[in-house]
Amino acid sequence: MNPRKLENLDRLAVHTITTKPWSIEEIIANYHQAGISGISVWREVLEKRNPVRIGEDIQNAGMEVVSLVRGGFFTGQTDAEIQASLDDNRRAIDEAAALNASMVVLVCGAVPGQAIRRSLAQIEAGLETLLPYAEKCGVSLAIEPLHPMYADSRSAICTMKTANEFAEKFDSPHLGVAVDVFHLWWDADIESEIQRCGDNGNLLAFHICDWKIGMADMLNDRGLMGEGVIQIREIRAWMEAAGFDGFHEVEIFSNRWWNADQKQFLKQITAAYLGHS
Amino acid sequence: MNPRKLENLDRLAVHTITTKPWSIEEIIANYHQAGISGISVWREVLEKRNPVRIGEDIQNAGMEVVSLVRGGFFTGQTDAEIQASLDDNRRAIDEAAALNASMVVLVCGAVPGQAIRRSLAQIEAGLETLLPYAEKCGVSLAIEPLHPMYADSRSAICTMKTANEFAEKFDSPHLGVAVDVFHLWWDADIESEIQRCGDNGNLLAFHICDWKIGMADMLNDRGLMGEGVIQIREIRAWMEAAGFDGFHEVEIFSNRWWNADQKQFLKQITAAYLGHS
Repeated sequence: MNPRKLENLDRLAVHTITTKPWSIEEIIANYHQAGISGISVWREVLEKRNPVRIGEDIQNAGMEVVSLVRGGFFTGQTDAEIQASLDDNRRAIDEAAALNASMVVLVCGAVPGQAIRRSLAQIEAGLETLLPYAEKCGVSLAIEPLHPMYADSRSAICTMKTANEFAEKFDSPHLGVAVDVFHLWWDADIESEIQRCGDNGNLLAFHICDWKIGMADMLNDRGLMGEGVIQIREIRAWMEAAGFDGFHEVEIFSNRWWNADQKQFLKQITAAYLGHS
Repeated sequence: MNPRKLENLDRLAVHTITTKPWSIEEIIANYHQAGISGISVWREVLEKRNPVRIGEDIQNAGMEVVSLVRGGFFTGQTDAEIQASLDDNRRAIDEAAALNASMVVLVCGAVPGQAIRRSLAQIEAGLETLLPYAEKCGVSLAIEPLHPMYADSRSAICTMKTANEFAEKFDSPHLGVAVDVFHLWWDADIESEIQRCGDNGNLLAFHICDWKIGMADMLNDRGLMGEGVIQIREIRAWMEAAGFDGFHEVEIFSNRWWNADQKQFLKQITAAYLGHS
């Protein structure tokens, strides 16, 4: 397979966390100026803002609100913790609807020292409770499997296979999977699991960045596309072969890039997107 | 399942790398004194030593040589690199035979920036070339899947499933899998993949340590059993249910523990083994 290069920014979205130093107002103005087509909104930037207004501002700037990031978790050691998580998820769904985002990205939790299977059972119970509310609000839930190095405290769902199994278990048009190359590139079965996800109508989102050799830390040293080892273009081709035609969302957590000039960084993002995605 | 506790050190083996500051002579004397039953020998400690003699010294001290660590790799960007890797693997098999170790543990390589599927194809070709030699020497090859966070430069085999597929592809009594809890604990399918491995007669080795929350670095900050989140005893019970009755090999890479008094560390290893494995 020789995947074609991207020729424009029509499908390029950026997660607000990628330019963490900026307020949502700065983000809207600068992303618009850079020719970016979509924004995935992290909840942090909505603090003291009216989400309806922010959603309108994004659309008035000619961009689409792709997703609200993030809900999920679902796990806990007490019923109270789990209930608090469900309440927070309902608020996330409300915010997504207010923003006019079609989905909430779910990071499905893990509890340090708790067996993976117990966390998975709690996630299943949480999805079962939450899904009717999401459906009522017309907001989809996108399960994002995280890299196995986060299985200790962040996500018990670590592979496309497990995410696919959850999405298929509920068989709802409002539950699917978000594919992030950083988390999943290593998986020998990733192509077939992406195909399976598409075949079942569950392919909701595509997140891109890069995996650098010798990361300074496990959380906040992701690379810009081209800085690392991921065959991003090939994975994108698999997404397209599986029927995905949504946004390519740049999501980079990086102390290094957050410390750089954010306007310059945005220019490098658009160049890297065209050159390496 | 409520797995039984271990009651003695009969199945306890330790990898020489665990007490890296010691020479092989210090290791034999101190492990013997600590009541340890087996040693997995890393090739580094054999430098300027006669492996036949070292093997005899270990057995004379009442311990078994469990495995030689490590061969594998198989991947490369040039034929010369791959040939050098195969030559080195033959030397590792010779050393294992000289030591009277029943197996060589294989870390099956990865090349930065090379697609996983290409590395897997190179690994398959390497195994095909090497296996007849291993069979001739009566030494088994144990594929050790590494954690996906090492897929960039160390191992393209990241799951029990992929390791099982390789072991089954060749269907040789001299090819199997080494299960290391550090690398595999997060996998939602680990229990069934261990069972599959046992059903096919491919369960060759069991390595233990722990996964700490907030590791200082991705390579050399493993925990002693009980210091982290892995349900080691439960995984051991799955190994036993799948028919495994070999050694429980403690393999810890830790700058923190390497800087500690190694005799004290060895006491803590035996206590942690009985208390948390």
